[in-house]
This record gives sequence, structure tokens and C-alpha cells, in this order.
Amino acid sequence: MDIGMIGLGRMGANIARRLMRAGHGTVVFDRSAEAIADVAAEGGIAASSLEDVAAKLNSPRAIWLMLPSGAVTENAVQAAAAVLQPGDILIDGGNSFFKDSVRRGQMLAEKGIRFLDVGTSGGVWGLERGYCMMIGGDTDAVRHLDPIFTALAPGKGSIEPTPGREMRDPRVQQGYIHCGKTGSGHFAKMIHNGIEYGMMQAYAEGFNILETRGDKALPEPERFSYDMADLAEVWRRGSVVSSWLLDLSAIALAKDPKLDGFSGAVADSGEGRWTVEAAIEQAVPAEVLAAAVFARFRSRRDHTFAEKLLSAMRFEFGGHVEAKPPAK
Amino acid sequence: MDIGMIGLGRMGANIARRLMRAGHGTVVFDRSAEAIADVAAEGGIAASSLEDVAAKLNSPRAIWLMLPSGAVTENAVQAAAAVLQPGDILIDGGNSFFKDSVRRGQMLAEKGIRFLDVGTSGGVWGLERGYCMMIGGDTDAVRHLDPIFTALAPGKGSIEPTPGREMRDPRVQQGYIHCGKTGSGHFAKMIHNGIEYGMMQAYAEGFNILETRGDKALPEPERFSYDMADLAEVWRRGSVVSSWLLDLSAIALAKDPKLDGFSGAVADSGEGRWTVEAAIEQAVPAEVLAAAVFARFRSRRDHTFAEKLLSAMRFEFGGHVEAKPPAK
Amino acid sequence: MDIGMIGLGRMGANIARRLMRAGHGTVVFDRSAEAIADVAAEGGIAASSLEDVAAKLNSPRAIWLMLPSGAVTENAVQAAAAVLQPGDILIDGGNSFFKDSVRRGQMLAEKGIRFLDVGTSGGVWGLERGYCMMIGGDTDAVRHLDPIFTALAPGKGSIEPTPGREMRDPRVQQGYIHCGKTGSGHFAKMIHNGIEYGMMQAYAEGFNILETRGDKALPEPERFSYDMADLAEVWRRGSVVSSWLLDLSAIALAKDPKLDGFSGAVADSGEGRWTVEAAIEQAVPAEVLAAAVFARFRSRRDHTFAEKLLSAMRFEFGGHVEAKPPAK
Amino acid sequence: MDIGMIGLGRMGANIARRLMRAGHGTVVFDRSAEAIADVAAEGGIAASSLEDVAAKLNSPRAIWLMLPSGAVTENAVQAAAAVLQPGDILIDGGNSFFKDSVRRGQMLAEKGIRFLDVGTSGGVWGLERGYCMMIGGDTDAVRHLDPIFTALAPGKGSIEPTPGREMRDPRVQQGYIHCGKTGSGHFAKMIHNGIEYGMMQAYAEGFNILETRGDKALPEPERFSYDMADLAEVWRRGSVVSSWLLDLSAIALAKDPKLDGFSGAVADSGEGRWTVEAAIEQAVPAEVLAAAVFARFRSRRDHTFAEKLLSAMRFEFGGHVEAKPPAK
Repeated sequence: MDIGMIGLGRMGANIARRLMRAGHGTVVFDRSAEAIADVAAEGGIAASSLEDVAAKLNSPRAIWLMLPSGAVTENAVQAAAAVLQPGDILIDGGNSFFKDSVRRGQMLAEKGIRFLDVGTSGGVWGLERGYCMMIGGDTDAVRHLDPIFTALAPGKGSIEPTPGREMRDPRVQQGYIHCGKTGSGHFAKMIHNGIEYGMMQAYAEGFNILETRGDKALPEPERFSYDMADLAEVWRRGSVVSSWLLDLSAIALAKDPKLDGFSGAVADSGEGRWTVEAAIEQAVPAEVLAAAVFARFRSRRDHTFAEKLLSAMRFEFGGHVEAKPPAK
Repeated sequence: MDIGMIGLGRMGANIARRLMRAGHGTVVFDRSAEAIADVAAEGGIAASSLEDVAAKLNSPRAIWLMLPSGAVTENAVQAAAAVLQPGDILIDGGNSFFKDSVRRGQMLAEKGIRFLDVGTSGGVWGLERGYCMMIGGDTDAVRHLDPIFTALAPGKGSIEPTPGREMRDPRVQQGYIHCGKTGSGHFAKMIHNGIEYGMMQAYAEGFNILETRGDKALPEPERFSYDMADLAEVWRRGSVVSSWLLDLSAIALAKDPKLDGFSGAVADSGEGRWTVEAAIEQAVPAEVLAAAVFARFRSRRDHTFAEKLLSAMRFEFGGHVEAKPPAK
Repeated sequence: MDIGMIGLGRMGANIARRLMRAGHGTVVFDRSAEAIADVAAEGGIAASSLEDVAAKLNSPRAIWLMLPSGAVTENAVQAAAAVLQPGDILIDGGNSFFKDSVRRGQMLAEKGIRFLDVGTSGGVWGLERGYCMMIGGDTDAVRHLDPIFTALAPGKGSIEPTPGREMRDPRVQQGYIHCGKTGSGHFAKMIHNGIEYGMMQAYAEGFNILETRGDKALPEPERFSYDMADLAEVWRRGSVVSSWLLDLSAIALAKDPKLDGFSGAVADSGEGRWTVEAAIEQAVPAEVLAAAVFARFRSRRDHTFAEKLLSAMRFEFGGHVEAKPPAK
Repeated sequence: MDIGMIGLGRMGANIARRLMRAGHGTVVFDRSAEAIADVAAEGGIAASSLEDVAAKLNSPRAIWLMLPSGAVTENAVQAAAAVLQPGDILIDGGNSFFKDSVRRGQMLAEKGIRFLDVGTSGGVWGLERGYCMMIGGDTDAVRHLDPIFTALAPGKGSIEPTPGREMRDPRVQQGYIHCGKTGSGHFAKMIHNGIEYGMMQAYAEGFNILETRGDKALPEPERFSYDMADLAEVWRRGSVVSSWLLDLSAIALAKDPKLDGFSGAVADSGEGRWTVEAAIEQAVPAEVLAAAVFARFRSRRDHTFAEKLLSAMRFEFGGHVEAKPPAK
């Protein structure tokens, strides 16, 4: 089937490609003409605007937005609302805030347009490996787009089946899930990313303790110098901490064992933050997920006012002068 | 080659079995006669004591301890020290505290006995999948026991090779690593388990937010009810949070989607605690790993004195009476 | 001067009383006739509605709202907006979310009504000790109400002056501050409460470690049994952890040394949560303030799904059965 | 009465002075001749060694050690053990690890020497304000030294008495407490300092959020610029976060409102670390106290390996390049 694709960045272009490889047609648009041309060269039908995408699709149209969350997605949703017809389907595959998706779904529903919020994980690997999709919204629309989701999903592959799933929804083992009503897809993806933050921080802290174990201040017999790349690699086999994030760490460390290519200023996107806010809204504890987000904030700051105040209090109370920071 | 195995619990018995399946001989002892008989029935040579194990092995002997850390292991090491001869090898495959291993290694070295601390991950799965091993100690002893480690390790299997490792130690891709001097194996295993705590807590918090998203106190359009078993399953495919721990979660949730079979009082072993203490010793932050340990402590307590004091302060300052706890 | 007071709960009624003691007139309203009658019996002029309060005040009118934040305050602000005249002053002394105050200030400014957001700390002690006030909004309105703020504030009292403040705003030493534009008062009060959460949790954790130090599992010579009431008391004198919260803890512990009168389910109001959200919005770390909020969430839950999942993972990986929780 | 004082640093010299002001005699020693001369000039009897201190005191001798914890204190205790006689009293007023104190107390008890571990808080303010003391050890020795503790303690002063303490130990209201057996004084002081860490971090985080609220990235109406010195000052009056640490913050901020005199590399002494380790030993949660310690560790590091690994994982998974750190 044919699908419109708005937004041909790293994720969007590869989603289009994976669909085309599976025999689906794509009508593609991006604000960058070059990005359009690249996908068109691989079989996509180039469009000159969102309106043009709509015009080039048959009813019921299906348009997939793969855009930065926030204003860019909002504008595209509003534009699509003006162009699409009752029965058409609008998909937001980006990392939108779930409350925006709930609101957008309601607005579109009033026009008879069906909205799906599709949290999509896969990174730069998705083209080859497929995308894990968490879908919220109308059941019929999900069913209608089943060929699309099937094409994008990783499929069963060689992953060992989980016992006891025989009577359960078979789509889940393909790598996509209909979570429930509108917003539930983006909410699930948000939590998924929150978990990712926590896992990454767990590895980061652990490797950090290993890396600093060679510190000259420690007694010599208890001082160890590890090969980080080898440790990451060995844990990929038979160890309970094996994971895809560990595979990626092993790749990075094999290339650059000291990670000298990185400064250590770690970006964060909205989803980690929103996860903490959801925990607060629901009054459930999330110490680890919050600490993971805060560690990134701290990584992007030089000394904080907080730290200066600590030093100032120590000086006023005890006459203590500041520590000299160690070399690293 | 032949190896002595002291301690035939879940881990020790399976290690003996995996060695025998690979054609190695085992001389086995446990305080439980039944445990000895079980392994002997599968080909192990039963021994009546540690001394008897030693007597039934050829020089240089290799004895593997797979015992609870602390006093039990200490006693076994002391007993082995009295029995073994220069050139013999003593292996501690348990979760001993690395500083104990450093001390034991020094004590044994004075007698010419070679000591290897072998952090061993694999759980109940190790028999079939193999064990990931982090080894500290004498290089020659590690080389001598290479057939043993090769037999126990998972091997390359179908795991995708990490690019750029062509010139690196090939044993690592088999699933075992010689980390460095005595103690470095148990230290690495300790950090490994610390990471495990952090990862587990990241999943636990994330699933908890998902599970409580159906709370009636939330506005209806933003209230979602998820199938936990399906979410865990779908993330196994193409998602960045895929991991072995997630596979295990999916198995548990498929069996018992509400996890009603568990009370939620979570045990912890020493390694999570020691990881936090190592971070403190090295003056490096480990917020996530510490929070993961503390969450387990809290799970085993009813209301703490801390919480009562918070309520008491609120009452004294603002006249606030206590919250009524929700149903769950 | 005369002031209207809407909301005669613990805080509002005492604010009215403290103003009357200082010679100011109050026109008071509450949804509870009994609350009105109580304050009227002490000299307040009873009013039958917000409109009636406005009718009984001279221009420029000043009305102080002391209401639960959220819908109740919103309704009162909207009602006041309909009744008040250009030049009148509306004060929100409650714990409103600062973004609401910014919005309300803009809405009222369009009508020429001056809005002050006045974060007010003092608890049940304020009547006698005075209230600490953090004020946002129009400079002239703050100046106009100076007699009110002076009457409510604690004044210099016997608190030792801070050196180097001679050239600074003298109002601050009286116990009130004009923080800046609209919203800045409630923002400062929000952070103030966030800090309070962190401090309370610091005491709570510390006393908890002391209280559990008598645990039979510890070696006898390292096992200590403390008198909590005495420890809290002694720290009030000469110790760096002395504070008002400690004074309150000492009072509570002297009454009930085991705090048996409390269950340990600790409520939280919005301000702790909003503080964490502000930290997230500003991308600054706030581990301690967040952990303090999460500890309260946890205190109101029985075992979480998170904890059950941890147990389930441990069982699936290692065959571990759950810990039996200790008696306390 | 006369007392020996070993260690005339900031704390020790002032303790000697405060004792002399109260009419007690001191025999003083320090490795610095200048420090001895300073105290001798104010009436102390100079001694040339620990032995000389002992020689110049009448039986039963009382010697107070005020030395850095660890090796220096250990050596002094060993030296005192060799010199003192049965019935003499040795006081460790420093911040020793409580398990060392337990061990030292046992060693000294075997020689009939009475040992008191006296956690002492007061900082540079103790000379004028008095010291808060937490005492562990022999009841008779504590009673014998009552004049000393009375002289050093702050006394009741103008601090409001806690209701309900009429039947309780009156010494506590003077500012010293006999906690229990040997070690319990240093344990209580350790927790006291752990609480201090948590409180300091609570203020630090709160002020940090206030300080960064002027960030240009925020929408203008929600952007506030605070005077930190004034906020700290106003909270000293009538606010629930008033405390001595806040008084000290107000002093520091009045001097240097931007705290430009501090780099933000914050030292930590052993007590914060040991508090976390005690929580771990006792299996009780201490998220806030731990986070406070970790924040200091982080403040003394440039970018950690942990942070680089986070960036590396983000790059490998999503092709994300690193964030550019903001100016501050």
C-alpha cells in the first residue's frame, strides 16, 4: 500500500526505505529538497508540500509524520488537519509528548480523521533490523495499516520465543503492539526511553568505577587497570547484563577505548524528562530514572552555583578551604 | 583435565555438569551427601571431604570453590591452604568480596599455591548457555586452566561480532577474560552485579509507571491500561532497551501478568552494596547504583522511622495530619 | 489599613488575627459560617461573599486570598477579577503554582487590577512568630501594602544580624522580600518548600540510621541504642544541624519518642513536585530534592509493582526466592 | 580541673581556650611549637610531648585528643595507651570512625584506661558559642568530667525549651549527651555530619534552581532574577527552612553574592561516606545522604568516563552528536 512520509531525517528516510524494500509505495516530503531527492532516487514519489503528498495518495490516505517533537510536529498536524478527509489516517511516529497526542487525537477525531501515535524505536539500525513500534489509537486504523507495521517491524527473527505466549496477540512477537487508545503509544515510548536513560546510567556508573580503579591513591594490591573494551565484550556472552546497549558500548569502546572522542557533555531529549514528570504526576517513585536525567544535566554544566554554596557554607562554619580538584 | 569442585549448589553442580559434558573429569564434594550423589550419578567422582578431593586429583591440582561468600568460603580457603601443594591452583568462583580475594591470594602465594578469583555469571541458565567469567590472578594458572574456561564459557555462538576486535584477545569473544592480578576478577564481577542492580531498577521503575497509569485519579483521556507481558515482549524486538533481563521479565510476565506470586520484598546480596562502597572509596558518583540498592532495602521494611519523623514534623509545623495510604 | 481576607483556614484566620492585633481592620469571608463567626468574634467584619468583602472595603481595595491552590484559588481569582476595580490589589497568599500566578497577573493587569503573589511561610506558628513572605508583583502595590507586610512579618526579633547588610533592603530583615515581578514570589516559596522537603528527608534518614543501630543483627559492641528525643534536643545547641525543623522534631520526639502515633504515610503538597519540575525545566540537577519527594510517594504505597518485578527477575535468572521481610 | 589537650588546630586550640575561660587548667601539646606558644600565652601549660602532658597532670589524668582522624589519632591513642595509668581517661574529640573507637576502647579497657569518644560540633564558632558534644563510653568517666563538658557546652542560652523535657536528663539541654557505650558518641556525630551533608545539599540545589531561573532560554514572563543574599536573609525569619546553615549561607552571600570566590570543588571528610556505609550495613535507605556525598565527588571531577560512555552510546544507537555545554 502507499503511504505519505513527511520528514526525511535519519529516522524518516530509513522508514521510507524499509517500506519501499517491502514493496510499499511512498510519497515523500521534507523541507530539504536534497532529502526528498535522495529518497526519490530509491523509488519514492517526490512531493512538494504536505498538500501535495495528500493529493498524490488514494483514499483513505495514510500520512506518517517523522518530525522533531514540539512546534514542528504541531504545525504539521495542523496542516494535515486542514488537508485530510474523514477516514484518512495521520500517524505521528516521532517522540511527541503524549498529552499533545491526546489533544491532537481529539482535534482530529472531530474532523473524522483517524490519528495514530506510534512510538518508534530503532535508531540508525532500524533500516536493517526493523523498528519496534508502540501504537496508540483507533483499532480499525491499526488493522488497516497492518501491512505497514509488519514491514517496518523486525519480525520474529532468531530471538528465542517466550514460553506461554501461544494464546497472545501474535503481532507483539513481530515487534509492534497496539497499546490502547490515543496517547498510549507515545506514553509507552516515553517510558521506554526513560528506562533507556536508567540503563545507560547504570552502565556508565559501573564502567566509571572500573575505569577509576587504577587510581594511584588506592593501595597498590587493590588497584586494578582494566581493558574497558574487553570487559564490555565479555559481558555480551552469558552475562546477565548483556543487552543491545552493551553491544553498542562494546562497539564504541573497541573503536576508542578511552572514549577520547567524546567530551562528556551529554544531551537529553524530552522523553527522559517527561518520564520523571509522569512519575511525579502518578506519585510513584523513580529515583533511578530521575538520577539518570540529572546526571546528564550536570554533565552539561561547569561548576554549579550549588557547589559554590556548599564550599561557602563549609568555609563559614569550619573555616575549610576548597578542595583542589584532581587531574580528572 | 580433572578438576575438584567444592560446593554443589545451583551454580556449582551445573558447573560440574557442564565440565563433564565437555569431557572433563570432576571430583566433587558438598556438605550435602545428596548433592554429591546427584553429580556422581552423572559421572563425577564423589569425595568425602576437601582433603579427599585433593587426594583424588593429580598434580598440579585445581580445585574450584563455589560457595557462599564470607565465612563459608573463608573456611574452605583456609582448609585448602593446608592441603594443597606448591603449584596447585585454587579457584574461587563465588561472589567473594574482592579485598578478601586479595588477602587470600597473598596468603596462598606465600605457600606457592596459585589463586584465581573467577567472577562467574550465568544463573540457572549457565548449564545450557555457558558462564561469563571474569578472572583475576596468575597468568600461567589462567593459561593452564584454559580448557576449563573454554568448556564453561558460552563461546562465540550466534552473537554478532564487534567490529575492530580482530587484533584483540580472542578469549574474550568466547566469554571469559583475564582481567589482571588477583582480586580484579571479583572486583569486575562486583561491578557487573552493581550494573545489574541499576538495570533491574530502571526496568522496575519504568514498568511501575506504566502499571499505575490506569489510576482512576488521572483524567480519563490520559489514563492508559497496559498489558505488561506484551510490552516486555515487544521491546525484545528492535528496541534499544532489549536485554537478557528484559527477556527474563517477559518470561515472568507471561506466566503471571500481575506478578501476584511475588510479595515485593527484594533480597540483595553483597555485591550491590560493595559496589556502592567501592564508588565511595574511589570518590566517584554512583547515584543510580546506590538508589537501586536502597530501593531493595526499603522494599523489605514496613514503614520506617524516617517516614514517621516526616509525618511528625509536618504535624508540628503545619498541623497536617497524615495521608491515608491508597489501596496500593 | 483595612484588608479583605478570603479563606479562614488555619493560615488565613491567623493572618487576619495577627493583622487585627496590629491594629488593622479585616473584612473576612469563608465558605464556613463558623470560621467567619470565629474571626468576627475577635474583631473582624463578617462578609457574606467575595462581592460583599469588596463592597465593605474602601478604594483602593486590597483582598488577600488564602485558599487551597488549584481550582479553589482559580475560581476566587476569577470572581475577584469581576468585582475589583482598576487600582485595586488582589493578593494570593496561598501555595499557587507560579505559572498560574503569572497567567493570573497578566489577566488582572489587563483590567488594571494589581496582583501580588505572596508565598507565605509560618505554619501554625505564624500567629505568634510572624510570617516569612516572598512577594512578586507591582512595586507600588508592595509599597502600598507595606503596613500589612510589616505587621505580618516576624520583625528583627532577637536574631543575630548578618554582617554586611547595612546598605541592603531593610525590609528583608523584617522577614519579607519583594522578589521581583509577578510569579517570582510563588516561585521562591516553591523552592523554599522544595528545600524543606530535602532538609526533612536528611533528618529523617539520619534518625532512621540511628534508630536501627540497635538491630540485633549487628555485632554487639557496634550496636547502639539511642534516645531519639535527647539526640534531637542536644543538636539544638551549638551543633551545625540546628534548625527550626530540628526544634519541631525535638518537640515531637519528647511527646512520643517512638513516634507510635504516626503510621509513616507521608503526604506531599504540590510544591515539592513543582520544584523537581522546575529543575527539569531549567536542566539543573536536583537529586536530593527529587529523592525527598519520591520517598514520600513510596511511603504511601504498599509494595509496588516495581518491587515485584525485581523479585520476578531474580527468580527467573538465579532461581532466587524472595526475602522474608524483617519485623520492621 | 586540669586537662591535657593534644592537637591545637582550629578546634583543639579553641577548646583549650574555652576551658581556660571557664577557669580550668590545660596542659597543651601540638607538633607545632607555634601552636603551643599561642595557647600557652593565654594561660595553658606548654608540654613538649604526650608523655610530658601526662607527667604534668594529676591522677586520674584526663587527656583530650583533637587530631585528624585515621593514622594521626591512632598513633596518639597508642602512645597514650603506653603512658596512661589505670583510672586515667583518654578522650577522642575528633571525627574518628566509630569502629576504630570501639576497638580502641576495648584495647584501653584492657589496661584499665577509660576511653571516651566525644563527637564535637562547633566549628570556628565553638569558642564563643560552645560545643555540642555526643559522648560514648564509661558512665563514671563522663560524670567525672562533667565540669569540662559543662564548660565546653553552649548551655541553655536563649533557646526556647522543648515542652515535656522536665523529667529528662538535664545535661542534654546544656548541649551535651551521654549516648551510651563506647563508639556511640562517634557514631552519633557521624550521623550528625551525614545529616549536615543532606541539609547543605538541599539548600545548594534550591539556591541553584533560583540562581538559574534567570536563564534566557526560559519564556520572559517566567524568568526571574533573584538576589540570593536577600533570599537567604529573609528565610532566617519566620520560615520553616531557618537554620544555622542558612545563617551561614546568608553571611557568605552578603559578602559575595555570586560566590565568585569559590570554584565549586567541594571537599568531603570521612563522616559523610561512613554514614552511607552505615546505612548499607544496616540495610536502610539513605538516598538523600548518599546523593549529597556523590554530588561532592562529582564536583571534584572534570567530565567522567561515565559521561563519555553515555555520549558514546547515544552516538552508536542514534547517531547523536554531543551537546555543546552552555556557558555555565
